[in-house]
Amino acid sequence: MMSASDFNSSNKKTFLQKEREATSFDINKINAFLDPNHERTQLIFKQIINDPILVSKRSYYDLTKEQLREQSIKKIQRLASYIEIAKDAGEFEDRLSLLSISDPAVGTRLGINLALFVNAVRGNGTDEQVNYWLVERGTLQIRDIYGCFAMTELGHGSNVAGLETTATYNPKTQTFTVNTPKLSATKWWIGGAAHSSNHAAVFARLISNGKDYGVKTFVVQLRDKNFDLLPGITIGDIGSKMGRDAIDNGWIQFHHVEIPKDYLLQKFTQIDADGTVHNTPLEQISYSALLQGRVGMVLDSHRHGARFVTIGLRYAIGRQQFGKFGNETQIIDYTLHQYRLVPYLALIYLLGPASFKLLNDYRAILNDLYSAKNIKKTIFDLKNLFVSSASLKASNTWLVSQLIDEARQACGGHGYHAYSGLGKAFSDWSVQQTWEGDNNVLSINAGRSIIKYYEAAQKGKPQGEDFQYLTKAPLESLDISESSPLDAYIEAWSSVIIKVAQYTLKIHGGDWESVSQERLLLSKFHSHHYLLSEYINHLYSANLAKKESSVLILLFKLYSAFNIDKFSGVFLQFNLISPSQLSEIQSLVKSLLRQLRPHLTGLTDAFKYPNEIINSSLGEFNGDFFNNYFGDIVANYGKGDKPPYLNVINETLQRENREERLSGSRSKKVLEKLSE
Amino acid sequence: MMSASDFNSSNKKTFLQKEREATSFDINKINAFLDPNHERTQLIFKQIINDPILVSKRSYYDLTKEQLREQSIKKIQRLASYIEIAKDAGEFEDRLSLLSISDPAVGTRLGINLALFVNAVRGNGTDEQVNYWLVERGTLQIRDIYGCFAMTELGHGSNVAGLETTATYNPKTQTFTVNTPKLSATKWWIGGAAHSSNHAAVFARLISNGKDYGVKTFVVQLRDKNFDLLPGITIGDIGSKMGRDAIDNGWIQFHHVEIPKDYLLQKFTQIDADGTVHNTPLEQISYSALLQGRVGMVLDSHRHGARFVTIGLRYAIGRQQFGKFGNETQIIDYTLHQYRLVPYLALIYLLGPASFKLLNDYRAILNDLYSAKNIKKTIFDLKNLFVSSASLKASNTWLVSQLIDEARQACGGHGYHAYSGLGKAFSDWSVQQTWEGDNNVLSINAGRSIIKYYEAAQKGKPQGEDFQYLTKAPLESLDISESSPLDAYIEAWSSVIIKVAQYTLKIHGGDWESVSQERLLLSKFHSHHYLLSEYINHLYSANLAKKESSVLILLFKLYSAFNIDKFSGVFLQFNLISPSQLSEIQSLVKSLLRQLRPHLTGLTDAFKYPNEIINSSLGEFNGDFFNNYFGDIVANYGKGDKPPYLNVINETLQRENREERLSGSRSKKVLEKLSE
Repeated sequence: MMSASDFNSSNKKTFLQKEREATSFDINKINAFLDPNHERTQLIFKQIINDPILVSKRSYYDLTKEQLREQSIKKIQRLASYIEIAKDAGEFEDRLSLLSISDPAVGTRLGINLALFVNAVRGNGTDEQVNYWLVERGTLQIRDIYGCFAMTELGHGSNVAGLETTATYNPKTQTFTVNTPKLSATKWWIGGAAHSSNHAAVFARLISNGKDYGVKTFVVQLRDKNFDLLPGITIGDIGSKMGRDAIDNGWIQFHHVEIPKDYLLQKFTQIDADGTVHNTPLEQISYSALLQGRVGMVLDSHRHGARFVTIGLRYAIGRQQFGKFGNETQIIDYTLHQYRLVPYLALIYLLGPASFKLLNDYRAILNDLYSAKNIKKTIFDLKNLFVSSASLKASNTWLVSQLIDEARQACGGHGYHAYSGLGKAFSDWSVQQTWEGDNNVLSINAGRSIIKYYEAAQKGKPQGEDFQYLTKAPLESLDISESSPLDAYIEAWSSVIIKVAQYTLKIHGGDWESVSQERLLLSKFHSHHYLLSEYINHLYSANLAKKESSVLILLFKLYSAFNIDKFSGVFLQFNLISPSQLSEIQSLVKSLLRQLRPHLTGLTDAFKYPNEIINSSLGEFNGDFFNNYFGDIVANYGKGDKPPYLNVINETLQRENREERLSGSRSKKVLEKLSE
Repeated sequence: MMSASDFNSSNKKTFLQKEREATSFDINKINAFLDPNHERTQLIFKQIINDPILVSKRSYYDLTKEQLREQSIKKIQRLASYIEIAKDAGEFEDRLSLLSISDPAVGTRLGINLALFVNAVRGNGTDEQVNYWLVERGTLQIRDIYGCFAMTELGHGSNVAGLETTATYNPKTQTFTVNTPKLSATKWWIGGAAHSSNHAAVFARLISNGKDYGVKTFVVQLRDKNFDLLPGITIGDIGSKMGRDAIDNGWIQFHHVEIPKDYLLQKFTQIDADGTVHNTPLEQISYSALLQGRVGMVLDSHRHGARFVTIGLRYAIGRQQFGKFGNETQIIDYTLHQYRLVPYLALIYLLGPASFKLLNDYRAILNDLYSAKNIKKTIFDLKNLFVSSASLKASNTWLVSQLIDEARQACGGHGYHAYSGLGKAFSDWSVQQTWEGDNNVLSINAGRSIIKYYEAAQKGKPQGEDFQYLTKAPLESLDISESSPLDAYIEAWSSVIIKVAQYTLKIHGGDWESVSQERLLLSKFHSHHYLLSEYINHLYSANLAKKESSVLILLFKLYSAFNIDKFSGVFLQFNLISPSQLSEIQSLVKSLLRQLRPHLTGLTDAFKYPNEIINSSLGEFNGDFFNNYFGDIVANYGKGDKPPYLNVINETLQRENREERLSGSRSKKVLEKLSE
């Protein structure tokens, strides 16, 4: 058998190796800038890639739905032994987040239990309830209970207040009857329901003495120890999806299922034996279960995005096409190719500080919430967090989706191969735009809030940290050039946000629905402003040497200038720039791309992702892509087999001619005979 | 068992049914406007959906790669009996195109043989060669020979001139030795090579007497009648892809494979027995094999796009969310939702006349080419066709990709289900952006040509039909309002194209590479201009009554106005509109969306796609989406199974605690013992 290496007589260094040697900065310093826990991250990566069950291989891309599901449950089994020795909840959360870079579905499948179910109980249960369901029973250790989060129904996703499942109180037996009154009330998309969960946090309308108290949260046991369904519970497999097939999403119908009264989670809503309901007004907090997901998706955008952009850039550096015969041009040296990929690299860099800032804010606010000190300030902070996390989740999951598609296209035909990793990446990623808050709904809600905050700021009301910029006067015209102060690159965005907010207030005419497009823009622009601000804050405090900081600043400038050009219509519409300034900004973008070109290898290496985490034939560290790719294909698919359906091919190509197959019954002779 | 219908006591009409009854125009007239062969189309649809092998069912979305491959070869077997009775080549081509709407991979798998292989032979072979390989052997009837198209190599895709496979002439034996001299010369991505092809059109460098004559086309037999590989030929399966897994792409290496001298296709290149090579200068035509694919992809954009936008819109009309409890708002009534989907409906409508115009031009020019009359004019026309088809292929395969993604997101969570059809649609579609000319490469080439044509037009040189607009003076400022003449909506685009061309000529400074971004814009804008022009031409000649034409005109206006807003930065940059005009255009877009709203059901019905062609639980004609969807899920996935890997779940949830599993070896007692 001929192997790839028979062709590979040359020992020349790859482009990636040559450019790596010429890197002018210390990638470890850049890595430490990006990742506050960089040492732990490297340790966890090492444990993942050396674990035969947890590591992802190329064959991962060939697995069927059934195989993926079995593999993911085995990974969860393996992770259960890590959770027992985790130093704190954050460490294991991070382990799962890092594992998800190469296998996002396993993160979700376990996250449904450890984040969604657990947060629903923690957010809505009394201390005793939290202790029983999560600690005493072992849920937090992936033991005994495996929970799912039964919120969404066939008929209601975004509109949680419209859910139709009922939980009707029976004073005589002191029980609730959980029921699915109509088809559209079927619980739908419930991750874990089809196969792995034995309990659910069920969102249902509390009905007592004929009155509807709105949607509350109940714990309902679905399956017993033998994994047989409890009476009255019907569950089915939702089946195949666009991606993340390793998750066993299911549907659930409740046909008059009785649960004890105290399976109602009672932090905010209590019910007396006679059916009297006590509601406290803080129940909107009950939806905070979804917040962790949103915040996590911003971190995912950074972490997964780093993987995707590395594949695209490594291929672009290694691949040659056109130009001198025998010494063709590296495709990254084409202006258009830089234009397509490098702004996404800038995005991923800027997302680093922003996503850790958001995560820290989330943890601090949730702590305040659970400790219930200074509740007024906590609610104020929580609302701000809702808006920023909605804007950041929506804007950046969209951008990363585009990044994957662009990187896939930038790898040419080879990007379409499963082993580029980018096809599955796209399918798996796409759900991030939809779940735990549809991106469009989140964005227009965030946009509306930004306008409200702007109005409030005009009236002198104090604003939260993320929205301070709304209290300042906008610039009337921008000055963006290479020598502009860095603040100018941020103020461009605060100014355009205020201009769009003012304009929207002018034109809405009481119909907020009609200005959704403008609200959407505000949400996207807030994300840009947030990323730029946090990046600079972090850069100032990081105190890096010039050889590192200068490159990081190029990325910052590129991000702002590229997006001003991208949204040039808005900047021109509000006279923030003139047409000739726009031309200058377009030149600036090209100049920044040229300046960044020599640093691209170093900037992707600085993510410090092992090959196994990147898991792409096109994105290996050594840059020897022909041998990597061909080797992977031959190793996994072999050579020269005949197809299993050879008989069909032969039947087709060697079939009798039509006349014979029709037994001659259309021959001239027969037709003449028939006409006689 | 409880069925969906137990819940469905209501006999209310669905929204789709109600809106259908209120449709103000005749959908048959609109259908005839869109499809010049509308009667034949309906006939073919009927034959497809009633054929148990050709029809696509929901279970299609659950098939593995192996199952898809077997199913697609069976479909090809079935089609072989249709090709025998086809009235002309156009009819079968159309049958395959229509079948591909619901199963694109089967179209490709057969198209590789019937279009790529056949066109390579027809474009490069002498009459005798064409007759032998295609007619005498039966290829055109899917008989005896199943060809593949071995152009692309591991190292070269877009740059065909850089291919590295060699065919070295041996005067002694009057043979060529076909060889793969290095790994990067391995033929790659070759559709059909892995399993189904026994012959290949191989693109290789002709070497004779030590001289390299560049890339020529050869017929090489790969497998014998038993489907055993011929000596020296190594083939492997390329394996899993992002989509279209039904296609058996393979790689081929030639290890000194001898073929007879006259397997060189000799229309443009002949070789004497002594190795003297005769080249005629028309060989660029040899690449015209790829043209049919590009032209076909524009028609695909129209036809497949109609399927995707129908799913998105039917769901949007049927789905309610938010608003009044019990009578929530149809999501299509949200401005943003209209903004997201309706411009794509306009795109699909405008693509109708444009794609048939392009197809007719292609057929006429290819006829001229094969008949070799007036070769100078034919070459001129062919060049124009290269540019328009490149611009249209790239621009519209991109837009349809975005359409699928938007439609998928617009279906919310349910869009992520495999049975929406949109996930697979995206994966299958994506390759259109890459193959047979990478979209970016095609676009910047088209953009460069448009600039050249503009320069030539300035010098008074006559321009082809598609580029006549370059000979006229651009408007200095636009006047786009609801009452503007229709021509104004087209001139907006001819004007902006000329402005961008002038600007690019001003700034390129001899470095055409540095203005790729601007060239890309020109290609996209040419596509807009082409679509708008052809649509109006067709509308004028169709002579429809006002109730049909008025709606078609709304779509036309929306397409132009929406895209002016989308590219407002460019229009403002070149002072074609003022900021206040932009605001008016944005209002016009909203007004057009409102006017189109009542017509959306009729405009999707007018495609006249049967349910089986749309193949989506969310896009059925009856609009009864809860019952359709739930019914599909239960029918295909059943209810309440235990997972096959239940043992792993139980092992995990009921595992001994850590101390026991470690045999107590970390207990305090043991550790004390060990320290003694």
